[in-house]
Amino acid sequence: MNIGLDMMGGDFSPLEAVKGIQLYLRNADLAARLFLTGDEGLIGPLIDEYEIPREAVTIVHAPQVIAMNEHPTRALKEKPQSSISIGFQLLAKGQTDAFISAGNTGAMLVGALHSIKSIEGVQRPTISTILPKENGGTGLLLDVGLNADCKPENLSQFAQLGSLYAQYILGIGNPRVALVNIGEEEGKGNLLAQAAYPLLRENKQVHFVGNIEGRDLLLDKADVMVCEGFTGNIILKLAESLYEIAVNKQIGNSYFERFNFENYGGTPVLGVAKPVIIGHGISKAKAFFNMILLAEKMIATNLLGKMKASFLP
Amino acid sequence: MNIGLDMMGGDFSPLEAVKGIQLYLRNADLAARLFLTGDEGLIGPLIDEYEIPREAVTIVHAPQVIAMNEHPTRALKEKPQSSISIGFQLLAKGQTDAFISAGNTGAMLVGALHSIKSIEGVQRPTISTILPKENGGTGLLLDVGLNADCKPENLSQFAQLGSLYAQYILGIGNPRVALVNIGEEEGKGNLLAQAAYPLLRENKQVHFVGNIEGRDLLLDKADVMVCEGFTGNIILKLAESLYEIAVNKQIGNSYFERFNFENYGGTPVLGVAKPVIIGHGISKAKAFFNMILLAEKMIATNLLGKMKASFLP
Repeated sequence: MNIGLDMMGGDFSPLEAVKGIQLYLRNADLAARLFLTGDEGLIGPLIDEYEIPREAVTIVHAPQVIAMNEHPTRALKEKPQSSISIGFQLLAKGQTDAFISAGNTGAMLVGALHSIKSIEGVQRPTISTILPKENGGTGLLLDVGLNADCKPENLSQFAQLGSLYAQYILGIGNPRVALVNIGEEEGKGNLLAQAAYPLLRENKQVHFVGNIEGRDLLLDKADVMVCEGFTGNIILKLAESLYEIAVNKQIGNSYFERFNFENYGGTPVLGVAKPVIIGHGISKAKAFFNMILLAEKMIATNLLGKMKASFLP
Repeated sequence: MNIGLDMMGGDFSPLEAVKGIQLYLRNADLAARLFLTGDEGLIGPLIDEYEIPREAVTIVHAPQVIAMNEHPTRALKEKPQSSISIGFQLLAKGQTDAFISAGNTGAMLVGALHSIKSIEGVQRPTISTILPKENGGTGLLLDVGLNADCKPENLSQFAQLGSLYAQYILGIGNPRVALVNIGEEEGKGNLLAQAAYPLLRENKQVHFVGNIEGRDLLLDKADVMVCEGFTGNIILKLAESLYEIAVNKQIGNSYFERFNFENYGGTPVLGVAKPVIIGHGISKAKAFFNMILLAEKMIATNLLGKMKASFLP
């Protein structure tokens, strides 16, 4: 399998990306071939310095870089030789089986939506986050910001995509799906939640267990939790801030350690036809390592094949 | 001043309400006269047992009780002699200056909206919560669930009500108002947030400082944070669960202690013409004590007068 990695994306690239590759090659069982897009003059010497075997990687020279604050659509158009643009070209052509970047999030999303098509039947791709459960378990929350306004049908599709991700990537059998809401009973909530509830209940591809409230997000009530991207993004960033607060206040508790995004690497864009993983701008070696592992797992489990089959009419 | 208190509301009434009154009479400077609605046969003996001077309280017998799970509108209609109904009657007639209950939240909201009119010019009353800031400060978040779907104008009015509450009750001079959003720049967000931003900026009654994200909710970026009641309710309940998690995990940190709702007593319904305070169903003595103090402060500062003046055309 071949995994594309943008070496120029993120605040600490390419150095931390190189360190992440080193970690991966030392620790992974499978060891995919890595296609590294970026400035060859920068990457080459680092690869050698960190003793990464040249036969494990292919450097694909990309002379342009999309900066973190550039306008996504414009940047992709004006910089076809950027590490992100070339990364998507390799993926679209099938030279790679997945693409990873910790660069400009907007450009990654626009690139994913435009270079790679959506899975047939999926109205809106989505991004998710891991929510660590108080009991040690792992939950998946989606959407976390790609779709600030949603239709009820979108939430039902997110549930379907999230269930497959939970099953094949997180290893949760028959994942319980819940609708994030402001009351437990059917009929509660805003207009969107009220309309999404019956669609989720009737969706035969998911195991719907009803509504969960804010207080249940960190409890073991559901494995896959769906909401529109506005609420989801607020939850995501509030949860991320808990890790920082715990560090600042020197609360040395292993639970809050699990809110450290580096543990999870990056966010896959679910609903597009190929694996695309977006990392945090402040990704370091561990995050890059985990993103490569995630890409490997998405390919090895044929997650995208399962998703395509799930949306067949 | 006269404060009405529902003695039958909440899981631990009337005992914990009586204990709360005892705390109040022992510790408060002003000591309002308390009008206690509920079953006289239950309340009287408890009042005597806890050595509450009879001249400090007036028991107003209410033979009916609205249970926690009853349908609000129906219960209010069918039980005009309930402790909540009579409490609102006293408030509407001017015999009391505020009304407090830890009972059926829906019945309290319906009662507040129907027995007591909205402040002239206020489209939708709102409920708020305190968010403890990491640096020791105090923030106010609203709406937290009364208005699951909002118009942009509602958010601007919530900001105005919240600013006055922050100023007169929380003691924050010239409170900074922020829009809870999924990006920092103007133009970010869902359709509601995009439309609310310019209204907030142009509202001369508030000191608008822009958008804040989920990661800023617990930081000292703003004093008053506005959003629709769906997102706000999720944040409220997630924040409440942090206290429980910290207790369960024996994280003895004073910051997480501040997420204990009992510290704040109850939630005022802002935007109705008289002070109405709704307590948590699991309120104990400390929560009742704090709710009485809050009612006292709302009356003593003439908060409602300031709010009415603020909405004059």
